[in-house]
Amino acid sequence: MNQVIEFIKSDRLKEKPDLESLGFGKHFTDHMFILDYNKVQGWHSPRIVPFEPLVLSPSAMVFHYGQAIFEGLKAYKTNDGRTLLFRPDKNIERLNRSCERMCIPPIDPDLVLEAIVRLVEVERDWIPNKEGTSLYIRPFIIATEPYLGVRPASEYKFMIILSPVGAYYSGRQLVPVKIYVEDEYVRAVPGGVGHVKTSGNYAASLYAQKKAEELGYDQVLWLDGKENKYVEEVGSMNIFFKINGEVYTPKLNGSILSGITRDSVIQLVKDWGVPVHEERISIEDIFNAYKNGELEEVFGTGTAAVISPVGELKWNEHKMLLNNSETGEFSKKLYETITNIQYGKAEDKFGWTKEV
Amino acid sequence: MNQVIEFIKSDRLKEKPDLESLGFGKHFTDHMFILDYNKVQGWHSPRIVPFEPLVLSPSAMVFHYGQAIFEGLKAYKTNDGRTLLFRPDKNIERLNRSCERMCIPPIDPDLVLEAIVRLVEVERDWIPNKEGTSLYIRPFIIATEPYLGVRPASEYKFMIILSPVGAYYSGRQLVPVKIYVEDEYVRAVPGGVGHVKTSGNYAASLYAQKKAEELGYDQVLWLDGKENKYVEEVGSMNIFFKINGEVYTPKLNGSILSGITRDSVIQLVKDWGVPVHEERISIEDIFNAYKNGELEEVFGTGTAAVISPVGELKWNEHKMLLNNSETGEFSKKLYETITNIQYGKAEDKFGWTKEV
Repeated sequence: MNQVIEFIKSDRLKEKPDLESLGFGKHFTDHMFILDYNKVQGWHSPRIVPFEPLVLSPSAMVFHYGQAIFEGLKAYKTNDGRTLLFRPDKNIERLNRSCERMCIPPIDPDLVLEAIVRLVEVERDWIPNKEGTSLYIRPFIIATEPYLGVRPASEYKFMIILSPVGAYYSGRQLVPVKIYVEDEYVRAVPGGVGHVKTSGNYAASLYAQKKAEELGYDQVLWLDGKENKYVEEVGSMNIFFKINGEVYTPKLNGSILSGITRDSVIQLVKDWGVPVHEERISIEDIFNAYKNGELEEVFGTGTAAVISPVGELKWNEHKMLLNNSETGEFSKKLYETITNIQYGKAEDKFGWTKEV
Repeated sequence: MNQVIEFIKSDRLKEKPDLESLGFGKHFTDHMFILDYNKVQGWHSPRIVPFEPLVLSPSAMVFHYGQAIFEGLKAYKTNDGRTLLFRPDKNIERLNRSCERMCIPPIDPDLVLEAIVRLVEVERDWIPNKEGTSLYIRPFIIATEPYLGVRPASEYKFMIILSPVGAYYSGRQLVPVKIYVEDEYVRAVPGGVGHVKTSGNYAASLYAQKKAEELGYDQVLWLDGKENKYVEEVGSMNIFFKINGEVYTPKLNGSILSGITRDSVIQLVKDWGVPVHEERISIEDIFNAYKNGELEEVFGTGTAAVISPVGELKWNEHKMLLNNSETGEFSKKLYETITNIQYGKAEDKFGWTKEV
């Protein structure tokens, strides 16, 4: 089914923000994409309209029962003025997997891709071209039906908003972060929704994150919810360990988010001929590798920060200082390789980028 | 700190819905209560205003990161025309416990109680007086700050909306429900947020509920997330078992919601001289009690349905038919005792009701 995307141009364009102080997720562009769902028409009325507030009943189900999912990807400006997306097909696949688990009707992937491409085209001038900046793309779905009672909603909105962004973590990219291993609070458990990009997972993570910050740490390393022993994610990123020349990351077990940067890192590292192990990893094994001097680097992966090197891991009374709390060569090489592909500076041998 | 609640009266009052077809959570009254939060002013500007749509940025954090909590209680009309609330202090206590866990600033309990009372007074004519009906009160808090990035929001709205309601489950009250024991999908785990009335818990429950319905069941009985062996909740209610003349309910372990009807049932049953055990209960023990002919009644408890008798429990290949799939005497007595207190027909020896 081909749906034509309507376009209503804004007659008042905003001033672009200063590239030096972009921050993350603070500024939004002039337009947004909207698609509505109801039971009679299905997903309908795709349109690009001026960025403006949503008008929703206070009883809209998203406020009460949290039926909401999202995605995050970026558009990059190349030195020769092209615009690239990074693996948008993967985000769209995951969006529909999130829909399935959260009882939201799936959306035609071709329409989602067309919406992203068209909206980014319309907002082309908003893509910042300073080193390390990009246009963050946030597709999301919320349950809008006005109703109190626990059941899947019968009305939804799928929207895409865009935000020109600098580094996700304030300060520069690739600055090592200090991580607190959380063994009391739990993010997710198999059989739950930890593998889904749904809003409630993020709300549930805030308390432990606050505790870590109060203790002087940047982020939390989550352990599994069943035994509180196995490594899952760090903050809202996937995590990797380089041990004795080989790379380890927790396998997708139903409570870990299937990150697209995670997948890209695994492909790249394999391509470099470095063994990659996706397996269950206990925090105790990590500590033993550290004691034996074999834990060479630790880093998080995610769309926002790409690669986030870990300088310190604190587990109970143990402090593991990694690579002298400096960014390791392997982390740096991964960051540069991926961002060079994203910004069109290196050959895209995996076909990851899509030109808009 | 005493804040004066401003009142802006609606100049267009809606027609009241037909009492025969009220349903649950479909109709809303003419006014609502709003209280705003920001870092400078704290919680401020309490007001009762016409019920109208919310206007929020598409980047409002509630849509993306699910920082949202709610409560549910009811106002009842007595035969002699009084209006009663049932244990509102308990809801307000739990609201602030939810705030704490979800990193939302707490609200002065006196202001919340005053807001509930004032709003119900304003909407007095909306309280239905037919048997089994009431005015459902929904206090809730949402993160409204326009920002993309995972951290507690710096702006919130606390609101109260009201809905005249009939029975929560379509059809009559006290009709036994068929329950499917879910041992694959998980609602919550210790260290998580299962004990908190936050929106994401409800979204996470939808998939298993849908599966149960497809198999011909009304609700899901959740098992614990660590071992998938111990009984937690049924649907969005607490659960009780009457075994050999004594009453059992899962103890509050950090993944079970601390229900106010649950607490009331425990107090009542103790007052009747029947032993009540709050403990860890395995589904296998329940099945063994059933096989031995000792499982006399099973029922859920919650604000919406009060007491919901269970007629059938399906666990793997086992079907347990309870009390010939009819409402048991004990369930009926509890329902009648509690609703008689709520509607002012029986002595309120525990001081549970508050007249508006």
